Amino acid sequence: MRLSRYFLPILKEAPKEAEIVSHRLMLRAGMMKQQSAGIYAWLPLGFKVLQKVEQIVREEQDRSGAIELMMPTIQSADLWRESGRYDAYGKEMLRITDRHEREMLYGPTNEEMITDIFRSNVRSYRDLPLNLYHIQWKFRDEIRPRFGVMRGREFLMKDAYSFDVDRAGAERAYRKMFVAYLRTFERLGLKAIPMRADTGPIGGDLSHEFIILASTGESAVFCDRELLETPVPGADVDFDGDLAPIVESFTSRYAATEEMHDEAAFAALPEDRRVSARGIEVGHIFYFGTKYSEPMGAKVTGPDGQEKPVHMGSYGVGVSRLLGALIEASHDDAGIVWPDSVAPFGAGIVSLRPGDGAVDAACQSAYEQLAAAGVDPLYDDTDARPGAKFATVDLIGLPWQLIVGPKGLAEGTVELKRRATGEKQAVSLESAIARITAKA
Amino acid sequence: MRLSRYFLPILKEAPKEAEIVSHRLMLRAGMMKQQSAGIYAWLPLGFKVLQKVEQIVREEQDRSGAIELMMPTIQSADLWRESGRYDAYGKEMLRITDRHEREMLYGPTNEEMITDIFRSNVRSYRDLPLNLYHIQWKFRDEIRPRFGVMRGREFLMKDAYSFDVDRAGAERAYRKMFVAYLRTFERLGLKAIPMRADTGPIGGDLSHEFIILASTGESAVFCDRELLETPVPGADVDFDGDLAPIVESFTSRYAATEEMHDEAAFAALPEDRRVSARGIEVGHIFYFGTKYSEPMGAKVTGPDGQEKPVHMGSYGVGVSRLLGALIEASHDDAGIVWPDSVAPFGAGIVSLRPGDGAVDAACQSAYEQLAAAGVDPLYDDTDARPGAKFATVDLIGLPWQLIVGPKGLAEGTVELKRRATGEKQAVSLESAIARITAKA
Repeated sequence: MRLSRYFLPILKEAPKEAEIVSHRLMLRAGMMKQQSAGIYAWLPLGFKVLQKVEQIVREEQDRSGAIELMMPTIQSADLWRESGRYDAYGKEMLRITDRHEREMLYGPTNEEMITDIFRSNVRSYRDLPLNLYHIQWKFRDEIRPRFGVMRGREFLMKDAYSFDVDRAGAERAYRKMFVAYLRTFERLGLKAIPMRADTGPIGGDLSHEFIILASTGESAVFCDRELLETPVPGADVDFDGDLAPIVESFTSRYAATEEMHDEAAFAALPEDRRVSARGIEVGHIFYFGTKYSEPMGAKVTGPDGQEKPVHMGSYGVGVSRLLGALIEASHDDAGIVWPDSVAPFGAGIVSLRPGDGAVDAACQSAYEQLAAAGVDPLYDDTDARPGAKFATVDLIGLPWQLIVGPKGLAEGTVELKRRATGEKQAVSLESAIARITAKA
Repeated sequence: MRLSRYFLPILKEAPKEAEIVSHRLMLRAGMMKQQSAGIYAWLPLGFKVLQKVEQIVREEQDRSGAIELMMPTIQSADLWRESGRYDAYGKEMLRITDRHEREMLYGPTNEEMITDIFRSNVRSYRDLPLNLYHIQWKFRDEIRPRFGVMRGREFLMKDAYSFDVDRAGAERAYRKMFVAYLRTFERLGLKAIPMRADTGPIGGDLSHEFIILASTGESAVFCDRELLETPVPGADVDFDGDLAPIVESFTSRYAATEEMHDEAAFAALPEDRRVSARGIEVGHIFYFGTKYSEPMGAKVTGPDGQEKPVHMGSYGVGVSRLLGALIEASHDDAGIVWPDSVAPFGAGIVSLRPGDGAVDAACQSAYEQLAAAGVDPLYDDTDARPGAKFATVDLIGLPWQLIVGPKGLAEGTVELKRRATGEKQAVSLESAIARITAKA
């Protein structure tokens, strides 16, 4: 993409209402614009990252055997009356009355609707296990939306729902999602630690939050240092095999959010293994048994011919929230530092003198070679001053910068800068491209 | 995908409420399920097609130079008061009051919001031309939703908005979208005819509907037969070049919907060129000048230093509606006949005897080879009867069927069926795969 044809409205000043660094940087980098309290338009740069995050989430759901569908945003209140949550949900639910005076709502989550889809179509244990997910906009009418995408009202969430004939099956489904989440966050360049979560009135021990560590995180977390080194399974992990040892390699070590923290258990760790840090919740997995299937009549016939309510779990990833979390975890004074896997463009080409024949030719050649290699470069061909161009390409956090000016070209070089380290090298155009494409 | 692990709830009977063939077939083929009047959940098979259609729409928007972003579904009523449409829009607008008693609405379209984004960020003619689009769920509270996705309430639409310094620029933007639409519908396997549309109170001649021909279409259309043969530009069309001759090759020939029909002009055509048929509207492009930019203060400074309201156009494609239109245009008594470009799976592998070693091995080999070639096969490995399997694979309309049974294998053959023609051949597994992958 040529910057002269793109829509990248960089702000010089961070708007005052932005209290945290990810919110400030997303606004300054022209990634989004607030349209109402807690409701954002995703501008082109932000939307590109959102799509990349979404695609990684999708690929790891698919790899684990979950099947994608798409539920609508607007739901019938009647469905929520069946589960008893219509009255219980409170003011966070955006309630709507349509032209025929029917009570509707903007879905804050989808347990009821997916249970309805299940009960309408599945009758037998032979159709199980089943895990259905979608990646769809949700709305929660937060009383005080803030922190940009970290606590917005309209947000993009991946929510998966598993259906099994019994608790043992549901535990297998739970472990699959546990491993899928480990892989998802690792691919996003994040260090995510699963932490035992409060299961509320339902009880049981099958609920984990996935917390990423970031110095500016929203809450205090405590964990065993060994968790930071525990290996995440590769792409060849067998989701039909026994995943319990992988899950246990995480759950057997101490990790807790502030609410679940056990000071005594933590103190029992050797001192050099006690990590106390800040974290951001980016995922939550939960086994809730027959909480919805029972009142809503979602039953299957078991091998014994008996009808039984199906055992369910739900598994959420805050897709739009992840963009805030990624920036909290990876930024510096100059701006965002995107992990390669989700960078909106793989490299920035900065022309220091548009109109200069040699510079234009070198930039164009770099542009074509990088595009052909699938790097998707952003080419700053505008007539802005070099200082402004450097500030912009640092701010938007592209992994590589390829800086092309007449002086360097006269000596046969361009400047290649790695955003994450700040390392700069004067190298030939060919070797710059070779380095970028080797890493891409 | 193995059917035994998929979620494909086929219905034997079409529900009574389905009045048109696309609605019946989408329900029977397990593509979607109604959740409320005019609101559908897209089941996995339907969602796959929806994603493919969406991706083709996206690629052709990008090719034409339009830039993707994502606006939220929930909008502030205040924005619509600025344009005067909040009161004018009527009951089709889903109006919402949030917990702080603020008036909101579920966007039926996005002229106001995109104008707001523009005015907040663009000041100069040097930043133009600009065309911004998104593919997002919309809601229109139809008084009588019907015909499935053809007239739903919650629907997926691509809407693009162009911004130019003057009318001449806006006309160039209009022609780009005109050509992008021709290419989009051709890639979808549809014959779309641009027809002059009523521009309402704004007047002018810059409005076209894109109508696809289908014998079960919603309205009568009339056109010159030569339009059916007018070539659509290839992928190498130069969007920066002069597109007027391409546009004129379509607009210079007679084509009109019933509302715009001019019997005398039609009668002036040679009789063998008069086509009177049924059509379905799938796209609409529209130049509306300063209708929104003027009241909303979206101005740019021109080369002369004067501030002027920007000239705008809007360009819609009904993405979810297209699935209905595709089926209306391509089906037979046995079910859907998907064009290759949007088929949910490229081929179906039908095992006539799961458990038979030779059959399982041949199916597995075909599955792996087709997957490796990017065909994305659906492998019916279930224990359903052969008749039921044939009916299902016909119903869901996959372009190729590869039928594997013990008798054929004993003779070294499988059966290859092309869904569109019904043509069947007994061939070796290798040549069946070669034919499928050659076409894929």
